[in-house]
Amino acid sequence: MTTVGVLRETAGRERRVAMTPDGVVRLRRTGVRVLVEAGAGRSAWFDDPAYVEAGADVGSREQVYAESDILVVVRPPDDIAALPAGRTLIGLLDPLGDPGLAETLAAQGVTAISLDLLPRTLSRAQPLDALTSQANVAGYKAALLAAEAYGGFFPMLVTAAGTSRPAQVLVLGAGVAGLQAIATARRLGAQVTGYDVREAAQADIASTGALVLALSDAVQNGSDGYASALTGDEAASQLHSLAQAVPRFDVVITTAKVPGGRSPLLVSAEALDAMRPGSVVLDLGGGNVAGSAPDTRVVTGHGVTVIGAPNLASTVPVAASTAYARNVVAALGALDDDELVSAMTVRPLHDLDKERR
Amino acid sequence: MTTVGVLRETAGRERRVAMTPDGVVRLRRTGVRVLVEAGAGRSAWFDDPAYVEAGADVGSREQVYAESDILVVVRPPDDIAALPAGRTLIGLLDPLGDPGLAETLAAQGVTAISLDLLPRTLSRAQPLDALTSQANVAGYKAALLAAEAYGGFFPMLVTAAGTSRPAQVLVLGAGVAGLQAIATARRLGAQVTGYDVREAAQADIASTGALVLALSDAVQNGSDGYASALTGDEAASQLHSLAQAVPRFDVVITTAKVPGGRSPLLVSAEALDAMRPGSVVLDLGGGNVAGSAPDTRVVTGHGVTVIGAPNLASTVPVAASTAYARNVVAALGALDDDELVSAMTVRPLHDLDKERR
Repeated sequence: MTTVGVLRETAGRERRVAMTPDGVVRLRRTGVRVLVEAGAGRSAWFDDPAYVEAGADVGSREQVYAESDILVVVRPPDDIAALPAGRTLIGLLDPLGDPGLAETLAAQGVTAISLDLLPRTLSRAQPLDALTSQANVAGYKAALLAAEAYGGFFPMLVTAAGTSRPAQVLVLGAGVAGLQAIATARRLGAQVTGYDVREAAQADIASTGALVLALSDAVQNGSDGYASALTGDEAASQLHSLAQAVPRFDVVITTAKVPGGRSPLLVSAEALDAMRPGSVVLDLGGGNVAGSAPDTRVVTGHGVTVIGAPNLASTVPVAASTAYARNVVAALGALDDDELVSAMTVRPLHDLDKERR
Repeated sequence: MTTVGVLRETAGRERRVAMTPDGVVRLRRTGVRVLVEAGAGRSAWFDDPAYVEAGADVGSREQVYAESDILVVVRPPDDIAALPAGRTLIGLLDPLGDPGLAETLAAQGVTAISLDLLPRTLSRAQPLDALTSQANVAGYKAALLAAEAYGGFFPMLVTAAGTSRPAQVLVLGAGVAGLQAIATARRLGAQVTGYDVREAAQADIASTGALVLALSDAVQNGSDGYASALTGDEAASQLHSLAQAVPRFDVVITTAKVPGGRSPLLVSAEALDAMRPGSVVLDLGGGNVAGSAPDTRVVTGHGVTVIGAPNLASTVPVAASTAYARNVVAALGALDDDELVSAMTVRPLHDLDKERR
């Protein structure tokens, strides 16, 4: 019988877990054994007895490594050298961000399947799409955090003491995270405007009921669901146009990422300086805002709060783990789908070069 | 010309200011001079130039004390002994919570008008009702903070990876704060239930679209818009009934205050122990939840997060100060309304005893 091992996450501040008790129930129905490292779900409020009740075994980390055919994680474990040869590792391994990882895993004889390599345009791939499920959680939390940090109301409220105007919120980047941030800020009653460099995403923004910020710059028509990096001139022009637009907003949420590349700068120091004191800028993309740092909240001399929040999904661990576990269950069910598995398999660069020849 | 002085708040963690630049414009139209202590609005993102632009003078604290006929504050200043005789102090002075304050002010020859003594049932008093305006802000923030602390989604979200159920939120106490917490949690998509010991408030809950939690205990029909303290037996019975109901909720927000008295205990240690790991309990009333402490977040051994948050209005300083300043402007315009002023004037207890004879 195949054993699926669930490792406790080792990355700092990581609160998610790759498998939930609900997910264990689904896996057990497919005839596999599930072995969960003790305490793996604790930060996401899933305790060991809940896994046992769902039909899993609970054991030490060593036991999970020794007895599992397939190991599931959210992020790469920091003791990756302990992975025995012949095992399969499934997770959001970010091989584009860390090319060395592929070499290490290959040298150990470990097969690594990274869900962030999923071809997102295939409809049968959707249930496996962990980037989407986690971006959805992050976008939701981004709107909550921005509302929490802002000193005014998001909604228009009418009271005996007068009426408050709704907050003006701008969301830059309308992928999954941006669209969920738009939806959540709108739920809270803010007046929301969205912006994206991709033409198709502008239609997505409009379909949520938000306003669309139109800049005079070139738009992209990428086919893979991602924005590609702009040329230097395009980026400079966009940055300048955004600096004109940003200061009239109370709250700006940035969600622009480029896969395997640096997140683009969207809000310059000049733009921050032109914003009103009390404004809030939340950088979900990581690197979208001048002076932002991960997991840090700074207030500029001018009174603008800049929040760096590149890993927000982890801070809503129940929702994020529940969605992620569903993606993992779907991935385990698709291991006989050669096209998907081949696309997601992590290969060292020199192997990729060979294939291209 | 009458000078209205605006003092910087001295209480710890207090970010509000009693007068905003908008309020200054309104006051100037009534022919008064406004003198603002330097930096008074900084924590609420109102800088000194904004006050000057609105028509105020800005000066040192000593200058504000020396030149003002009327001093406006949110909370009692910690250098109250510096108040010169003959001045009038207007604020949320909480004389019921601090009876010594009345003695001190009377001994100094200061007339103190406390907005929390306003007779709330008079309709012409509504524009002055700072307890209401601040409770409204606190209730809004309570729902945001609870959503932020909770590990799951508040809304039901349908995605390719499955559907999330909405969070089950219970709001205890349906005064202004409770009703705004209900409205905000509902905006976010949670399934909300409200409870109040007062029969009229139960109708208010139903009118928001939330469910009403019915306990078999006695209901109250108070006429002053407040709940009164229950008898010992009533309180014990309520606590027991709530302990049965609370564990099926993911998030509980408590907002029960008794004016001039201790906030009642609503969520016992027994109830906390019966809640699921990952549940969140936010104590806005202060003392409504076993083991809660002000401005503190603790996680019980069982995995329930308890947040003590008795002064949330201060954490949304723009919205709270804007509403409060409107109340203060209304109060300054009502200083010839003998009934209101008499009700709000702080008197030492021995004077009150004389009046009652």
